[in-house]
Amino acid sequence: MIVGADFMRRLAKAAAAETLPRFRTAGAVSNKEAGGFDPVTEADREAERALRTLILSEYPDHGILGEEHGSENASASHVWVIDPIDGTRAFISGLPVWGTLVGLTIDGDAKAGLMSQPFTGELFYADGDASHYEGPGGPRKLMTRSNDDLSDATLFTTTPTLFKGPMRERYDRLERAVRLARYGTDCYAFAMVAAGHVDIAVDAGLQSYDIVALIPIIEQAGGVVTTWTGGPAENGGDILASANPVLHEKALRLVND
Amino acid sequence: MIVGADFMRRLAKAAAAETLPRFRTAGAVSNKEAGGFDPVTEADREAERALRTLILSEYPDHGILGEEHGSENASASHVWVIDPIDGTRAFISGLPVWGTLVGLTIDGDAKAGLMSQPFTGELFYADGDASHYEGPGGPRKLMTRSNDDLSDATLFTTTPTLFKGPMRERYDRLERAVRLARYGTDCYAFAMVAAGHVDIAVDAGLQSYDIVALIPIIEQAGGVVTTWTGGPAENGGDILASANPVLHEKALRLVND
Repeated sequence: MIVGADFMRRLAKAAAAETLPRFRTAGAVSNKEAGGFDPVTEADREAERALRTLILSEYPDHGILGEEHGSENASASHVWVIDPIDGTRAFISGLPVWGTLVGLTIDGDAKAGLMSQPFTGELFYADGDASHYEGPGGPRKLMTRSNDDLSDATLFTTTPTLFKGPMRERYDRLERAVRLARYGTDCYAFAMVAAGHVDIAVDAGLQSYDIVALIPIIEQAGGVVTTWTGGPAENGGDILASANPVLHEKALRLVND
Repeated sequence: MIVGADFMRRLAKAAAAETLPRFRTAGAVSNKEAGGFDPVTEADREAERALRTLILSEYPDHGILGEEHGSENASASHVWVIDPIDGTRAFISGLPVWGTLVGLTIDGDAKAGLMSQPFTGELFYADGDASHYEGPGGPRKLMTRSNDDLSDATLFTTTPTLFKGPMRERYDRLERAVRLARYGTDCYAFAMVAAGHVDIAVDAGLQSYDIVALIPIIEQAGGVVTTWTGGPAENGGDILASANPVLHEKALRLVND
């Protein structure tokens, strides 16, 4: 075990104290990119600040890379990667499918991480050995699906419009091959793969902080996460997560055909 | 007041007793339409059965129209319209954005209704005079947004692929006019309009039981729900819901241009 349940819960709680009171209030929303609509709330900034304080008080030698406040001590062997609110659009629309993401890389490999959803009271985390769930209905181990047939698979993606040009044609091929596709889910989609509720999550143009926390949660539940070319997912990019290696291989082949 | 809070809570509880224990379990999923993927779970059927029993024990003279078990006493002045699980795709994918819908029509007009989400513990309901919320964070009255500028609006739809042929072009016009569009939400989208978190919800080809419960929740919170041609929404079809009359008029004009 690399990170214990207790510290995972403390991280989730520290973030929740900043995000939850600001959820479903008409909070200040600023445009991060001029012209685009990339909302960053006060909740985002304050939650990351709280997470950084907690991590450095426990692990002063570790590095941190966060969406809001950049990187510090990035050359350390252990680096925490934070997205305080993944799914800001869901957050500002009142939908309880955003999440706080905190991952730990060791020499560049994602080894532990959590996704928490404080409105529903859910915590998904990987401790280095296994993946766990805490929430309504009680705690349990996370385990991915064994289905390896694309035509029986359910696929999640944030929105097909993320896939531009030839990427779109490759995505559409995958969507046509599966049984059911659902949109609008961000990090929650990847948590559902880890929890065995769906088979595939796919997204384009992710940042490192969008995916690092989710890699160990899926891997330690039995799943696979890579880029669309089959490489490591830790640096983000176009990402494919599948419930098991056989299904992953089939999905990779399809998008690379 | 037409239906009191206590009966609304009893309806929500009766449905939850059948849906919640079957959420996120590998329950039996049957294909309602041969060839298509229209999952109907045991939860769906049992929840409707429980709701019918409760309604008829309280209001033996009322009629009932339900998604699963059809209509009875449909010529009564008071008819309850039930969708035990709206958003079955969300349900089977583990996402907590499905809901139980129970509406009451009097002489064909939707006058009271509820949308409940038992995993998050949320209840949205209209009692005939006003719309109310109960859930995490405590109870409150529901009130829609006052924003009447399309370019500041957030829009929800289940998926753009629901809009076929010329409908798609009309939908795209609306999506281009708003600030932000989000997909994958079913009944939860309409509840978010009532709750003042978003501005517009739009869907195509709805059934009566998909929308009747939501009409009074939105109307009694200050919003407007009609078909795309501006007619009554009680019979379903292509539906547009807006936070206020001015915004609704602008959205209607755009899709009918």
